[in-house]
Amino acid sequence: MNLNIALLPGDGVGPEVLAQAVKCLQAVEETFNHQFIFREALVGAAAIDKKGRPLPQSTLKLCQEADAVLFGAIGDPKYDNDPEAKVRPEQGLLELRKSLGLFANIRPVLSHPSLLGKSPLKKEIVSGTDFVIFRELTGGIYFGEKKLNEEGTVASDLCEYSETEISRIAHLAFKAAKSRKKKVTLVDKANVLESSRLWRKVVTRIGESYPEVALDFLFVDNAAMQLVLNPTQFDVILTENMFGDILSDEGSVIGGSIGLLASASIGDENALFEPIHGSYPQAKGKNVANPIASILSAAMLLEHFGLMEEAMAIKLAVDKSLRKGIVTPDIKSKSQFGTQQVGDYIAHSIVDIE
Amino acid sequence: MNLNIALLPGDGVGPEVLAQAVKCLQAVEETFNHQFIFREALVGAAAIDKKGRPLPQSTLKLCQEADAVLFGAIGDPKYDNDPEAKVRPEQGLLELRKSLGLFANIRPVLSHPSLLGKSPLKKEIVSGTDFVIFRELTGGIYFGEKKLNEEGTVASDLCEYSETEISRIAHLAFKAAKSRKKKVTLVDKANVLESSRLWRKVVTRIGESYPEVALDFLFVDNAAMQLVLNPTQFDVILTENMFGDILSDEGSVIGGSIGLLASASIGDENALFEPIHGSYPQAKGKNVANPIASILSAAMLLEHFGLMEEAMAIKLAVDKSLRKGIVTPDIKSKSQFGTQQVGDYIAHSIVDIE
Ligand SMILES: [Mg+2]
Ligand SMILES: [Mg+2]
Repeated sequence: MNLNIALLPGDGVGPEVLAQAVKCLQAVEETFNHQFIFREALVGAAAIDKKGRPLPQSTLKLCQEADAVLFGAIGDPKYDNDPEAKVRPEQGLLELRKSLGLFANIRPVLSHPSLLGKSPLKKEIVSGTDFVIFRELTGGIYFGEKKLNEEGTVASDLCEYSETEISRIAHLAFKAAKSRKKKVTLVDKANVLESSRLWRKVVTRIGESYPEVALDFLFVDNAAMQLVLNPTQFDVILTENMFGDILSDEGSVIGGSIGLLASASIGDENALFEPIHGSYPQAKGKNVANPIASILSAAMLLEHFGLMEEAMAIKLAVDKSLRKGIVTPDIKSKSQFGTQQVGDYIAHSIVDIE
Repeated sequence: MNLNIALLPGDGVGPEVLAQAVKCLQAVEETFNHQFIFREALVGAAAIDKKGRPLPQSTLKLCQEADAVLFGAIGDPKYDNDPEAKVRPEQGLLELRKSLGLFANIRPVLSHPSLLGKSPLKKEIVSGTDFVIFRELTGGIYFGEKKLNEEGTVASDLCEYSETEISRIAHLAFKAAKSRKKKVTLVDKANVLESSRLWRKVVTRIGESYPEVALDFLFVDNAAMQLVLNPTQFDVILTENMFGDILSDEGSVIGGSIGLLASASIGDENALFEPIHGSYPQAKGKNVANPIASILSAAMLLEHFGLMEEAMAIKLAVDKSLRKGIVTPDIKSKSQFGTQQVGDYIAHSIVDIE
């Protein structure tokens, strides 16, 4: 298969971890006889610094023309803590998702048996956790109208949702549940928010077309609690943008290592794959960031194009590195292996598996 | 001291647990020679059923005339799961907070040494947790303008904050931090939301008047993660209404029992005290609900009026019941003691302590 893959390294440790994912894709290319063409572009703080905008036009164009986008990470503290900053790195990712029509963010959360000891939750609570969060990505309060009065004393953000926005991701969630444990949990705040009541109405109606899937409801504050109390109760969690942001970050730590978690952002015509961890600026350039999440995001990319055997080769190579202890210090504190060494080991294992 | 206390039992287990708190206040009254006048009124689903409104005018008047309000719980599933319902029980509490000008909700989270085994978090993670959440209560998206278009296909909620709303609760948080571990963590989403950027600007400026208190910032998604990863890092968490709702519910489970947690809602001229648990409708009338949170909310009420010795008498009696195992089944699954028995034991212990 020929694939045009746009590479957006971004900020912080993004470039380092993405480089390892590319190594692995090149190992797949060679081993399975595919042709992947990689083209790289600036995004985030790196793009603001060089081009004045977090998502330059040329970057967007490259992504639109590509079959898929492989993304590093975004964000720089020099913008985060400056309330006066006019442009922000995160706008780059938000605009990109919007422009590519990536309306669904999909995040699997799994408790890895070898990492149960690293979870902050007790083993008996976290063991067996296996759920996936479907987060709406292009609507809600992050994209609603923002206002600040002239005196700078009153500020507001609008959270708006339409039936169309809700229904397209609801269908994806119900379809996913059909091939999983057949349960969708809609997380909202329908006792207070009008937008949540629309979510509940639309999702309830769509659920009727999936009679084999059970649908239940949780308020977001309760959901934040249940993720900690009893994460194994969940199968597919469906929710709006900001609730999904909060819950998927909370969910990400219960498995024991955020450095292993990949995600997909899916639209009708494009798809973007990225590790869920942020730009981790303190670690930038130190060869300590865990590349596995980025490498597994490359595996999700291959699955998206039906290359299941190739994706499995990456996953098996990742499992091998975890079993053999060829891991970065976040997994094993005295590890001698860095980002590059782990990336090399996994890439070589892919070739060996064949 | 003479105190007029409005009693609002509300829904579900609210009436049962509130009755135990009243018993304890009566034990204090008798033991310490005070005069407490209790007047009861309807709120929530109970008020909708009898008067058609979740906060009848007579209830509001009673609360306005009282020195403080002791609240049970609110909410009924028959309204929650009906997206067409026009009035909702929760509106009663929201309106009451707004009408009484209760702008700050204060929730202590403590890990009780005797309950470490009940926390979903590992002992080494949760042990030593001692923080308090200051949640803004009358602004933000829960109170912003709500819209639904005529076709019922687009819904929105507005999140708005003014400098005044932010600054009054910020001062309370900094003052509390001065007598604690001297750290305030502002939780927001300033990289995306205009209202969050206003919070950060105002709180940063106010922080300059409290040079002995350290101020740091966390995005809400990261905060949801940090509460699970490392709850002992926090002292005072300051945040807006919805973020506070989510984080304080998440925080409530890490101590091991939600049935122990009380809260205060403070305004310039009034104050309301309540357990943080909800109406727990499945347990209604079964004499199994834990009355301790409600009893400890009565202790917070006494502290609010400077009755520190009296409040301590309640807390010591609660500690004794926990040590002796006179607890409801949520704490000790085979316990023979119910809501009333635990309430009686604690009330009697208050008299004995003298
Ligand atoms: Mg996030
Ligand atoms: Mg809540």
